[in-house]
Amino acid sequence: MSKNLLNILFIGDIVGDPGLNLLDTFLPGFIKKYDADFVIANGENSHQGKGINRDIIAKLYDLGVHVITGGNHSFAKWKVFSYMKNDGNILRPLNYPKGNPGYGYGIYDIPGMDRKIGVLNLQGRTFMSAIDDPFSTADWAIDRIKDETDLIFVDFHAEATAEKMALAWHLDGKISVFVGTHTHIPTNDARILPDGTGYISDVGMTGSFDSVLGMDKETSMKRFMLGTPHRYKLADGNNHICGIQAKVDMETNLCVHIESFVYPTLNNSKLEE
Amino acid sequence: MSKNLLNILFIGDIVGDPGLNLLDTFLPGFIKKYDADFVIANGENSHQGKGINRDIIAKLYDLGVHVITGGNHSFAKWKVFSYMKNDGNILRPLNYPKGNPGYGYGIYDIPGMDRKIGVLNLQGRTFMSAIDDPFSTADWAIDRIKDETDLIFVDFHAEATAEKMALAWHLDGKISVFVGTHTHIPTNDARILPDGTGYISDVGMTGSFDSVLGMDKETSMKRFMLGTPHRYKLADGNNHICGIQAKVDMETNLCVHIESFVYPTLNNSKLEE
Amino acid sequence: MSKNLLNILFIGDIVGDPGLNLLDTFLPGFIKKYDADFVIANGENSHQGKGINRDIIAKLYDLGVHVITGGNHSFAKWKVFSYMKNDGNILRPLNYPKGNPGYGYGIYDIPGMDRKIGVLNLQGRTFMSAIDDPFSTADWAIDRIKDETDLIFVDFHAEATAEKMALAWHLDGKISVFVGTHTHIPTNDARILPDGTGYISDVGMTGSFDSVLGMDKETSMKRFMLGTPHRYKLADGNNHICGIQAKVDMETNLCVHIESFVYPTLNNSKLEE
Amino acid sequence: MSKNLLNILFIGDIVGDPGLNLLDTFLPGFIKKYDADFVIANGENSHQGKGINRDIIAKLYDLGVHVITGGNHSFAKWKVFSYMKNDGNILRPLNYPKGNPGYGYGIYDIPGMDRKIGVLNLQGRTFMSAIDDPFSTADWAIDRIKDETDLIFVDFHAEATAEKMALAWHLDGKISVFVGTHTHIPTNDARILPDGTGYISDVGMTGSFDSVLGMDKETSMKRFMLGTPHRYKLADGNNHICGIQAKVDMETNLCVHIESFVYPTLNNSKLEE
Ligand SMILES: [Fe+2]
Ligand SMILES: [Fe+2]
Ligand SMILES: [Fe+2]
Ligand SMILES: [Fe+2]
Ligand SMILES: [Fe+2]
Ligand SMILES: [Fe+2]
Ligand SMILES: [Fe+2]
Ligand SMILES: [Fe+2]
Repeated sequence: MSKNLLNILFIGDIVGDPGLNLLDTFLPGFIKKYDADFVIANGENSHQGKGINRDIIAKLYDLGVHVITGGNHSFAKWKVFSYMKNDGNILRPLNYPKGNPGYGYGIYDIPGMDRKIGVLNLQGRTFMSAIDDPFSTADWAIDRIKDETDLIFVDFHAEATAEKMALAWHLDGKISVFVGTHTHIPTNDARILPDGTGYISDVGMTGSFDSVLGMDKETSMKRFMLGTPHRYKLADGNNHICGIQAKVDMETNLCVHIESFVYPTLNNSKLEE
Repeated sequence: MSKNLLNILFIGDIVGDPGLNLLDTFLPGFIKKYDADFVIANGENSHQGKGINRDIIAKLYDLGVHVITGGNHSFAKWKVFSYMKNDGNILRPLNYPKGNPGYGYGIYDIPGMDRKIGVLNLQGRTFMSAIDDPFSTADWAIDRIKDETDLIFVDFHAEATAEKMALAWHLDGKISVFVGTHTHIPTNDARILPDGTGYISDVGMTGSFDSVLGMDKETSMKRFMLGTPHRYKLADGNNHICGIQAKVDMETNLCVHIESFVYPTLNNSKLEE
Repeated sequence: MSKNLLNILFIGDIVGDPGLNLLDTFLPGFIKKYDADFVIANGENSHQGKGINRDIIAKLYDLGVHVITGGNHSFAKWKVFSYMKNDGNILRPLNYPKGNPGYGYGIYDIPGMDRKIGVLNLQGRTFMSAIDDPFSTADWAIDRIKDETDLIFVDFHAEATAEKMALAWHLDGKISVFVGTHTHIPTNDARILPDGTGYISDVGMTGSFDSVLGMDKETSMKRFMLGTPHRYKLADGNNHICGIQAKVDMETNLCVHIESFVYPTLNNSKLEE
Repeated sequence: MSKNLLNILFIGDIVGDPGLNLLDTFLPGFIKKYDADFVIANGENSHQGKGINRDIIAKLYDLGVHVITGGNHSFAKWKVFSYMKNDGNILRPLNYPKGNPGYGYGIYDIPGMDRKIGVLNLQGRTFMSAIDDPFSTADWAIDRIKDETDLIFVDFHAEATAEKMALAWHLDGKISVFVGTHTHIPTNDARILPDGTGYISDVGMTGSFDSVLGMDKETSMKRFMLGTPHRYKLADGNNHICGIQAKVDMETNLCVHIESFVYPTLNNSKLEE
């Protein structure tokens, strides 16, 4: 069969068990609904809100995830890195300095197709810690990926909207899809940039919305109001999946459709329709 | 006539002439479409991207805006403050320290109704400059506003999604509507919180989307890639209005409907439907 | 006896046992050498580098310390706060928001004199967390202290040299002595400001100088070079006491002498003299 | 003649005309007093507090300065960069990303000796903007310099004391002298590290001490107290030179003596001696 559109499904930052349980129930259905050829999920918060472990990795593969991306919490649990050395399907941002374990990008076979996809994970520096430059690191990695495939997906884990837009403009036309993660709030700006790259500033999170970014809201309020340290706890309740689906033209390797979803729908109306 | 729903229209950060020109063309139509009773707009970037001036204020009033809110750029053009002393319909964040000019909240007659609305403008501190605490300032102002009306709208101008969610939880049920501004990217999380406050993390901006946050994208990319200062310029092209409409039940003063819009719609698909 | 100069001894941030052991050996001698009437020490890092506990508090009192000040690490060990409720001689920065336990200033009898001294602990906000304004908090506290005494000592725990100088200028002539703490590096700018307040930007730390700020240097280098979290450890070796002695004229309550010391002297020369 | 000690004189951040005028009067005397073989000065604030220009460069050369280092204000005045392309004796931090003009290190003949000295200018990232990693940049540059000379001087322009100490430990024994600049406050920790590198956390500034970091103190206080922008002005009065002199053993290329000075002495006592 010669399919000419690739369907990519991306799941935003999974926050602990509430997020994992949602995926357990709904991810297989989403994969079917969107006829997803390749599934990527950001797992930096999947282990109780911070980091990931081996069981969660196995579970996500079981559910149909092909590649797991990360972020600033990727290094929260060092134990998992001994395992990750041998697993190129778990990524952490490439622009952490040399000397850190783990992979920042990979090139993967797309199941059932004679094609490959490159997935690149990067992290921002504005309002975040000082690591290597994501712009020049992106250029370096994309050069290497392009030796094997022009079909490229980037997860840019960053805080500042300006840095996300700037890197996306820098990469427009060179990659297929660019998604932002890390703020845990889905944005409403999914669009195709002029040179063909699919874009969204942030996919949002997969976890409890009766929370502050998936974590207990009382603790978070205390931290802001008192200015003192209080131990974070995971939240639960009003759980939602945030994701995007993108369609890539297999001839041009450019995006022809990108849309975001929050499931179940957030309750924004008490009016009868 | 006894209307039982109040329609509020809020327009996100207006960035220079591209934003103002859009409003000139479309705002009257939006007011009609949404049957808006009260119109609020964030004007902190309306003067060439930074600050505001007297002509723009007059123009926005002409177009039907009742109250103009601000943010970290409110103080960029000091000249306008001599005028603002006498105009309580232009706000800047209340939690700038005492000694600064301007108003941070106001209580306004809703045209054509025998009712008042309080509008409160606050600013975040995470990843922003160190001003007074927005949480305790909110409590103080809301106490005073409630002497006159329980119908309260808050524009929280802030960077961090966690700070926005935390303040919204703190105010849930005490105010009618809470909108975030400042990141210039619309979020996809408009919802009604459990105790009845309408919420969105960020309304987004009104200006050029062929840009980084409304400003020239080449300059922004240079700043990120070189780390050196380069003069900001306003962008133009691919201009959009970001806003929300909210409906407030006039008996409970709580929100019964909140939805966001980006107009014209962003192009997220090249597929035929 | 009518003494007309008050001798104050202040000891900079004590970092763990290396700092405490030095004080055990040398503090009594310093008190004698400087004929110190009142002894203040910053204890925010005294418990293994972070926070303080009840035993350390008792030990410092035994050694002759009258008041213990704090900083951003004061809240690291919550257990001690139940005790601190009843002990007004341990301070933490006053400008932590209301709702936090502990005292931020106190007025104390000077042993053997019929006089009182006010000690005020404040914290900066530049490059630090967003707490209340140290400038207006200082004004508020100094007003209250002055009802009982004009002899006032301020420990301003802050990172930025600009914020330290600015607050010192704001207080010059209103207080007797202003010392900075927190950077753990002694500065070479002890001086009497034009209106009579004794000033130093930072007193420095009391702990291991074979370290990064008293903590293990290998860990610190890893954190900077790798950008990833690595557990802090206390350092030991090449231990030094940093302090100042100040003399205050008991009639004017202004400073007439301020000098800093690092003991033992740092090795800055291999030349024979 | 075979001299076996090299005398280096370094002058801390020159802030505008008050700093330049002091050097005009006193620098030649200092060069003579310390028998300085090589003179380096940080000029990032020499032009009215921000940046440098061609006249100031010429003047500093006239006064006996051999190399001018810079910092975060080096790029404040772009005009001078067209000139700097041709002048390798003016440096700006090397770890600004590729694509920026100017030199970050140089290898220079020491006048009257048959020896060369390498001077390397780096900038920190903690509490500063996100540029390239100073640690790996240092390693790269030092490798190249060592092809020509082992006598190496580093000016690390940085805010955080921890980052300064960490980089100094990383370089201890590989370079002759390491000085910190940028905070504009002289530190009291000049010392020789265990493997032979001369060290000081900050040299301090050369300019008005009746100021906040050389700039008008009223403006600075307003900025801190009001949280709003107010235009910086240069200060004047109570002007001081901050510098260090270091002696390097010409056989080992390691430091055998380092001492700092503030001239004239700060007034820290009103007591008769
Ligand atoms: Fe996350
Ligand atoms: Fe994250
Ligand atoms: Fe804005
Ligand atoms: Fe803003
Ligand atoms: Fe400390
Ligand atoms: Fe501290
Ligand atoms: Fe400087
Ligand atoms: Fe600087």
